[in-house]
Amino acid sequence: MHRTRVRVVQDALDANQTIARANRADFDRAAVTVVNYMGSPGAGKTSLLEQLLERWEAYQDEVRIGVLEGDIQGRTDADRIAEYHVPVAQINTGISFGGECHLDANMVRSALPELPLDEIDLLVIENVGNLVCPAEFRVGEDLRVMVAAVTEGEDKPLKYPLMFRTADLVLINKVDLLPYLDYDLEKFHAALDAVNPGVPRLLVSARTGAGVDEWGAWLRQEVAARRQVA
Amino acid sequence: MHRTRVRVVQDALDANQTIARANRADFDRAAVTVVNYMGSPGAGKTSLLEQLLERWEAYQDEVRIGVLEGDIQGRTDADRIAEYHVPVAQINTGISFGGECHLDANMVRSALPELPLDEIDLLVIENVGNLVCPAEFRVGEDLRVMVAAVTEGEDKPLKYPLMFRTADLVLINKVDLLPYLDYDLEKFHAALDAVNPGVPRLLVSARTGAGVDEWGAWLRQEVAARRQVA
Repeated sequence: MHRTRVRVVQDALDANQTIARANRADFDRAAVTVVNYMGSPGAGKTSLLEQLLERWEAYQDEVRIGVLEGDIQGRTDADRIAEYHVPVAQINTGISFGGECHLDANMVRSALPELPLDEIDLLVIENVGNLVCPAEFRVGEDLRVMVAAVTEGEDKPLKYPLMFRTADLVLINKVDLLPYLDYDLEKFHAALDAVNPGVPRLLVSARTGAGVDEWGAWLRQEVAARRQVA
Repeated sequence: MHRTRVRVVQDALDANQTIARANRADFDRAAVTVVNYMGSPGAGKTSLLEQLLERWEAYQDEVRIGVLEGDIQGRTDADRIAEYHVPVAQINTGISFGGECHLDANMVRSALPELPLDEIDLLVIENVGNLVCPAEFRVGEDLRVMVAAVTEGEDKPLKYPLMFRTADLVLINKVDLLPYLDYDLEKFHAALDAVNPGVPRLLVSARTGAGVDEWGAWLRQEVAARRQVA
């Protein structure tokens, strides 16, 4: 009995990996750098992305950006992003996929026909708000960017280690609230370094726009680095 | 093939329900009212619970409280709670249970021997920080209390409807930060009423202690109501 059960689980994991690789091949063919963009519910993912897009116009010729929004239900986030006149598609995990708490490779694959991959250089895939499950599913991304708000407390890297460990960049959001919180930034840095030593991190604020230019520069540098290799 | 697969899923769901009922029977036998306590990572669940316990001493003869802490890893939260000299046990979903993003009935059942059920009247089970998965698994609770911080934005009930819909009480936390946020409380109330019309809600602050007395009174009233029925 046990052996059968293990085999079934293995198959399911492999299916995600197989589809993630197929996505990866499509992204490579179109020369698109893909970011899996994750964080807690309410960490400020969509608001930060809006700040980024507001500043992106000057760079849109250099690096054309597109967005894929993942939510359990609704298309509020996709509608917000569409205001910035960039290609955007919405995945709802609640209708076709049984209310999943994360995006997986197959959901992303099902949305690819909605996106003009040949007309973009950078695709940001905003995952479902969740610090646990999304980290377990590759969707074919090059990079993982996560948002951790200072309002969430300093201990989160220790309590949700997988997502923090697999992040390539951590955006420390809502720093405009630091004067009103009992939050020790050094403690957060230490917790983050305990699970992902030296990972790049930026202090940002979706409210004031602080640090968003630096995030944009980091993204464009990552796209440029992949172009040189290609 | 499809029929077989449906049957397997059904069995799995039933297993949780069966064990949840066994937990429920044990709780009833010991006359313990059980709260499944949920919310996002960093919503302030543990800090609010500390504020509650700080005020509980005056009522400990009337309603004896115990706590079960669920985390992916670590026992920081259980250690924090133990400071208040109440019975506390810790479940780690990361070691024995494969890093699950929620508590299920079996995990709770495995922890029951650690708790003196006959010596408590109210058990608060703090779930893993997650707005999605915990709502799908009953653990044998009487009541669901969820924490939603104002820093998470007003739209969360619409984006994570299941948890908000199944809550018996919503604690709206971090209200001390309202002066520094662009947060429209009326918008949140409307979103909450759209998924769970009229659900009781309290404005609270884990930082200042505001509203925590009212939360304690609500809990004691729920325990008293169950005593009258029994």
